[in-house]
Amino acid sequence: MITTDFAAWSADALGQVEQALSDWVPAAAPAGLGDAMRYAVLDGGKRVRPLLVLATAAAVQGHAEAALRAACAVELIHAYSLVHDDMPCMDNDVLRRGKPTVHVQFGEAQALLSGDALQALAFELLTPDPAQVPPAMQADLCRCLARAAGEAGMAGGQAIDLASVGKPLSEAQLRHMHMLKTGALLQGSVQMGADCAQSPLTPQARDGLARYGAAVGLAFQVVDDILDVTADSAALGKTAGKDAAADKPTYVSVMGLDASRALAAQLGDEAHHALAATGLADVELLRVLADRVVNRSN
Amino acid sequence: MITTDFAAWSADALGQVEQALSDWVPAAAPAGLGDAMRYAVLDGGKRVRPLLVLATAAAVQGHAEAALRAACAVELIHAYSLVHDDMPCMDNDVLRRGKPTVHVQFGEAQALLSGDALQALAFELLTPDPAQVPPAMQADLCRCLARAAGEAGMAGGQAIDLASVGKPLSEAQLRHMHMLKTGALLQGSVQMGADCAQSPLTPQARDGLARYGAAVGLAFQVVDDILDVTADSAALGKTAGKDAAADKPTYVSVMGLDASRALAAQLGDEAHHALAATGLADVELLRVLADRVVNRSN
Repeated sequence: MITTDFAAWSADALGQVEQALSDWVPAAAPAGLGDAMRYAVLDGGKRVRPLLVLATAAAVQGHAEAALRAACAVELIHAYSLVHDDMPCMDNDVLRRGKPTVHVQFGEAQALLSGDALQALAFELLTPDPAQVPPAMQADLCRCLARAAGEAGMAGGQAIDLASVGKPLSEAQLRHMHMLKTGALLQGSVQMGADCAQSPLTPQARDGLARYGAAVGLAFQVVDDILDVTADSAALGKTAGKDAAADKPTYVSVMGLDASRALAAQLGDEAHHALAATGLADVELLRVLADRVVNRSN
Repeated sequence: MITTDFAAWSADALGQVEQALSDWVPAAAPAGLGDAMRYAVLDGGKRVRPLLVLATAAAVQGHAEAALRAACAVELIHAYSLVHDDMPCMDNDVLRRGKPTVHVQFGEAQALLSGDALQALAFELLTPDPAQVPPAMQADLCRCLARAAGEAGMAGGQAIDLASVGKPLSEAQLRHMHMLKTGALLQGSVQMGADCAQSPLTPQARDGLARYGAAVGLAFQVVDDILDVTADSAALGKTAGKDAAADKPTYVSVMGLDASRALAAQLGDEAHHALAATGLADVELLRVLADRVVNRSN
């Protein structure tokens, strides 16, 4: 496989992910639930997590069906978290990916339920008929996703976020919150891609990919905090400046803008070094993805 | 194993479930999240679903560690559904298991998050180190739980429930709603117990257990609807009469009280017949459990 043409690879990968999400998020779910689920998932989002899964799976010659399912599953977890996060009892946001948020469009009850159903669907995608994906790989993927999504991962980070409004946090506390809230699922994406390997990875490959995932996961959030103050709502597709308005601690509020930019660049370098340490033959896609995360403008 | 002494078996089983839930729902989850999760799960509930898992596992000589994990996982899904269902945007209920509901005690945002984290934790419990539970069994259990909890199961049933307020339903529509909303997770409990079998079950056993689960699952909801009008809040530990007050269709509102009682008894008979058809040697615990579901008073 030629992996140097990132643009062609990512266009193909994104096409596969969009098609699979459209196939697997059921329009037929009862009483409008399917409409809300599809609205929350389709036609939007940068799909950073699916691309991390698929690029990692490509680097380890992973099981193609498992990788596509994992890519979609992690995106469903991300999508559900946005639906719940936007609700009035949380961030109370009305705009997401340039569209009204799910509770604005479908009501709060349907938003709550559709988020719940998307989380269950993520695990459903990971557990097809055993003929499609080896059962031990299914178990590995479920194990990884559950940990990344749960109290020691994303949900725990959101609880810290909730408790941190209006409080001064140290850089270490902020890093801990973000490693859970955003980092865990991004890091989990890389690990799920690695879990798709059909023969055991070397410890160096495992460890290097884990370090890569951690660096990219944190870099993503640092850049998010930078863009929250430097970009406008139209470019972001969501409400800009909302963290500052909500008195939430961010990298920019804790470290300042220049130091935040320096940190993002440093995390990008860490990601590159970690990849080099994997000993894997072809990590070009992952290298470009890390650069895209650090240099993105929305 | 002597299974004729149901009281001794269930006391032992419930003790194991309570201890395991207390061990596995983490007090240390960040920023109060663990407190809300434990409040939602511990010290309350009839634990019907865990008992169904464990009694079925006993009937098929199932893997003990897998069965205990499955029993706790299905209870976590049930618990999260109650937390979200009680929220102001859904049923807006303030009393559950004789205590203030989670959002009353901890706030809406923490209720939302703790429900989300409980769902993830359910799948985490099902995917321990492969040395503890065979990976293929882990995958089977995740597959079953995800389907029972998702849009084609519990979440789908709740969407129908939400859309049915104030509408006349036929008995067939009501049955469909309840087979999803409550039945799917109860039936899933039986199937998860069966999934713990360490050698393949006969088609008769699989089929009989599926029919048993369907009958008990529906009977549970019919009795719930009966108790909603015949019991008081103190006996129920939750607000009595709330379905009628909310103008929700129930078996009693659609069929009347006598016909509902007759249906519950008929479903109990169906459960007995289905058990007899399994060909399994010892289904006594499951037989008594079905009777308890039909004849319960809270």
